[in-house]
Amino acid sequence: MKAAQVKLTDGPIDLDEFARLKALYGPLAESVRELVDATIRTEVDDEVIREVHAEIEAATAKLRARQLDGSFGMRTTVTGETFSWGNASVGLRNAVAPPLVIESDGAGRYWTQVTLGAAYEGPPGLVHGGVCALVLDHLLGVTGSADARRLTGTLTLRYRRGTPLGPLHAEARVASVDGRKATVRGTLSDAEGVTVEAEGIFVAPAASV
Amino acid sequence: MKAAQVKLTDGPIDLDEFARLKALYGPLAESVRELVDATIRTEVDDEVIREVHAEIEAATAKLRARQLDGSFGMRTTVTGETFSWGNASVGLRNAVAPPLVIESDGAGRYWTQVTLGAAYEGPPGLVHGGVCALVLDHLLGVTGSADARRLTGTLTLRYRRGTPLGPLHAEARVASVDGRKATVRGTLSDAEGVTVEAEGIFVAPAASV
Repeated sequence: MKAAQVKLTDGPIDLDEFARLKALYGPLAESVRELVDATIRTEVDDEVIREVHAEIEAATAKLRARQLDGSFGMRTTVTGETFSWGNASVGLRNAVAPPLVIESDGAGRYWTQVTLGAAYEGPPGLVHGGVCALVLDHLLGVTGSADARRLTGTLTLRYRRGTPLGPLHAEARVASVDGRKATVRGTLSDAEGVTVEAEGIFVAPAASV
Repeated sequence: MKAAQVKLTDGPIDLDEFARLKALYGPLAESVRELVDATIRTEVDDEVIREVHAEIEAATAKLRARQLDGSFGMRTTVTGETFSWGNASVGLRNAVAPPLVIESDGAGRYWTQVTLGAAYEGPPGLVHGGVCALVLDHLLGVTGSADARRLTGTLTLRYRRGTPLGPLHAEARVASVDGRKATVRGTLSDAEGVTVEAEGIFVAPAASV
């Protein structure tokens, strides 16, 4: 049986369909994340590398038989929630994204627990400084958009020490709001404490506040 | 015939072996980048998604039959050049990395031309602010490490406007050097001009200068 697929040209989708698609695409992207990791770390013989290369090209061709013209963008459910499955930090369908899962206590504190492996390396054994920025930019952006959608205006990162690959915690809170601008502060930490401090100014497009 | 593989426990590798491994792993990672893009954009039927999912899991298992315990880290050639094929922004073997190729005029200017597609999306149709930070952090870090290896101390990004997905240009130059610290400024641009400005202070570990 041929089932309906997510089409960006369709309108908002109902929650059953949302759950069904999540259960379909989530595991696919998760398997691609594992493949990304294995591609970096493998030490198998050349002929196996070439064999896998051919298999991946064939799998990609199957997926590309019918695809969106451009990027995923943003869709909405019938209840008005948005989802950006192609997003580089939180996208369910994007193997570049860890993906971050952002939680909130409902009282202004936002956080995420994430384990960053070999694919996020910068200096040996450490998370790339730019990946620390990716995590903090997204978390601070969500935190600063709680009352109105805002985009990054400025972001300042202070790297106190290297962030080891492995389990990490990031958290953020709004420091102040001034009309379209929200100032948000946050940190990235390992088990020993803070590794990176961040401050961001997030600004709503003129029309949206 | 069983060929030798990159092992992190091995010493520096000669240039012929470096070229051979580059030609083996480069195309593998490139095929995984295509797969990442297709995973985000595909609209094929559910049964094809499930079939591809199973194929990717099988391919990953083949690669994992023998692999590094941890991340790739950094290796050196016999001529003293280092390579970080697992790096999240420039890693040849890392499908998370576009990968950036950084060029220099030999007179202090460093730049990179990169096309960022669906896997780097933030707001619909735009590059994720954190991905802009990843590009600029790496480029500025290389620029600030020309005379001595330095790591990111602070990084400040000013987002002038959204950066469209597509072909982009980033460039950077050292503004000043003060012992272990280098101040570097750079920009990210599309065809219309600058989208993000960056300033970074990069610091050498105490022992290395």
